[in-house]
Amino acid sequence: MQRFINNPDDVADDSVRGFVKAHKDLVRLSDKNRRVVVSTAAPVKGKVGVITGGGSGHEPAFVGYTGRNMLDAVAIGELFSSPTAKSFHEAIKEADGGAGVICLYGNYAGDNMNVKMAAKLAAKDGIEVATVVANDDVCSAGPEERDRRRGVAGEIFLWKIGGAKAASGASLEEVRVTSQKTIDNCRSIGVGLGPCTLPAVGHPNFTIEPGTMEVGIGHHGEPGIRVEPLKTAAEVARDMCQIVLDDHNLAEGTEVAVLVSGLGATPLNELYILNDTVEAEITARGLTIYRTFIGNYFTSLEMVGASLTVLALDEELKSLLDADASCPAML
Amino acid sequence: MQRFINNPDDVADDSVRGFVKAHKDLVRLSDKNRRVVVSTAAPVKGKVGVITGGGSGHEPAFVGYTGRNMLDAVAIGELFSSPTAKSFHEAIKEADGGAGVICLYGNYAGDNMNVKMAAKLAAKDGIEVATVVANDDVCSAGPEERDRRRGVAGEIFLWKIGGAKAASGASLEEVRVTSQKTIDNCRSIGVGLGPCTLPAVGHPNFTIEPGTMEVGIGHHGEPGIRVEPLKTAAEVARDMCQIVLDDHNLAEGTEVAVLVSGLGATPLNELYILNDTVEAEITARGLTIYRTFIGNYFTSLEMVGASLTVLALDEELKSLLDADASCPAML
Repeated sequence: MQRFINNPDDVADDSVRGFVKAHKDLVRLSDKNRRVVVSTAAPVKGKVGVITGGGSGHEPAFVGYTGRNMLDAVAIGELFSSPTAKSFHEAIKEADGGAGVICLYGNYAGDNMNVKMAAKLAAKDGIEVATVVANDDVCSAGPEERDRRRGVAGEIFLWKIGGAKAASGASLEEVRVTSQKTIDNCRSIGVGLGPCTLPAVGHPNFTIEPGTMEVGIGHHGEPGIRVEPLKTAAEVARDMCQIVLDDHNLAEGTEVAVLVSGLGATPLNELYILNDTVEAEITARGLTIYRTFIGNYFTSLEMVGASLTVLALDEELKSLLDADASCPAML
Repeated sequence: MQRFINNPDDVADDSVRGFVKAHKDLVRLSDKNRRVVVSTAAPVKGKVGVITGGGSGHEPAFVGYTGRNMLDAVAIGELFSSPTAKSFHEAIKEADGGAGVICLYGNYAGDNMNVKMAAKLAAKDGIEVATVVANDDVCSAGPEERDRRRGVAGEIFLWKIGGAKAASGASLEEVRVTSQKTIDNCRSIGVGLGPCTLPAVGHPNFTIEPGTMEVGIGHHGEPGIRVEPLKTAAEVARDMCQIVLDDHNLAEGTEVAVLVSGLGATPLNELYILNDTVEAEITARGLTIYRTFIGNYFTSLEMVGASLTVLALDEELKSLLDADASCPAML
């Protein structure tokens, strides 16, 4: 393993410590739980608190989206593992400004269980908790089973827009409705060209043979819908657009935001190459691209690959997507 | 090669096209030269124009730093190759607002030659051109031969500060003096754990054996000062700090900006792990960290590794580093 690590068991803690040191102006570690990162602006009295949580190894997700008008607190798990209910509970308490707290998180068994337990604990503290579960990964279940789909890079849009809605002074229910609309309007797909390795395991927990690619791969290497010979960037981008947009089924003239994220080890210039065709394909379908985001927004350690997310916009979502915010991952 | 590319010979053009499509609000392609990216705000009448140029494959460098109060224009070369004199010349013309143009670029033979030729051509157009050559890579030559050192990630600081100085209304000579001070105050080092491959070549043009690392590696795989067994992240970070700070020789109490950049395929969480020790080492030497930047700021395709840059600050440099600016790479 050609990696910058110390003890493989300490990767999550070492990483969070170095992260907080780099971004002291925007974030701090919770005094009560070293697995909770809190915005230096939180809690804001009278504002709905906005939190998330998830496994480490997806940086800048999740911690990098903590900040002003973004996430108030984030619970951190071990690599590719859910944070504990205790950490989610502490994140809720840190974010609580007296107007309730919303947890915007991805649809994974461990996170679902731990967020529910944390919400019960918070109810005993007198904090009302709402949840919105991201399920934007189109290849993880069919369109008739959307509630079984996993959450992936669409969460970036969810956090930005949910954070901005809360910052606007909206009520807990209003933030919930707008956040739910955001993820309902999101579709994503991942394509993997190379696996990643959890340092404590020491070898990849799945394989992608050289010369092949896995279409629909999940953020932890969950199997996709097909393995096929590696195509050109233009062909890959066309396939990604087709899968996402066929599922999305948007009316002509719809304005969309596009996010092309690297999965960790893919160079940025290759994401630009993908975008050259993504832009052409989306435009050819009569959709209008309002904004494009390209970079390592939601990664999976050193996985080689990319994800595409398309968010259908309306006037409310456009204004919230553009709202002023500051976080280490800079959206 | 597990890569998102089309024709390997088209990587630079395909990438720039996808880049400009993603960031139309901030950049455009020159009408006259498809290897020149221009800020949508340029030229600004009466402002010193600020340009750079360099090979592709280092994204977001160089093009990602084009924007408002940053670089006015950027000349683009093939992968790891200097832009042509013609492209540098066109970038100068696109950036010219009538107050002269400064080219802030890295110390490589091809760039030196082509910038000089472009400056001569521009002189014939009546445009005065100044240059500042980045030479922040401490391992590329000894301290007595600083003018032989290569430019690496210190260029990010050079562009941000030079761009801000020009935006403040300073004269060409004032921008030159402040830019020169910036790079004189910069020291960088790279450590490589894995090589990268030019798609048109198809195999790595250098090797790093598994279990080893190359200390002092250049941005194109130029040999470092030693190859040794891969150490822990803490030990690597200590070595990087020692090499940079011994060369820098800063007085106690000096304020510094720190940049930890991934070289392409190193996950962000490992850069945070490095920063945990970098922060401790720099602080232990009595220096004060004013700001820290961590991410893929200056890469080398899918090279595995990281670079550390330390910039010594004074009041002028702090204020320019913090100045408002907008560019796709978001500094």
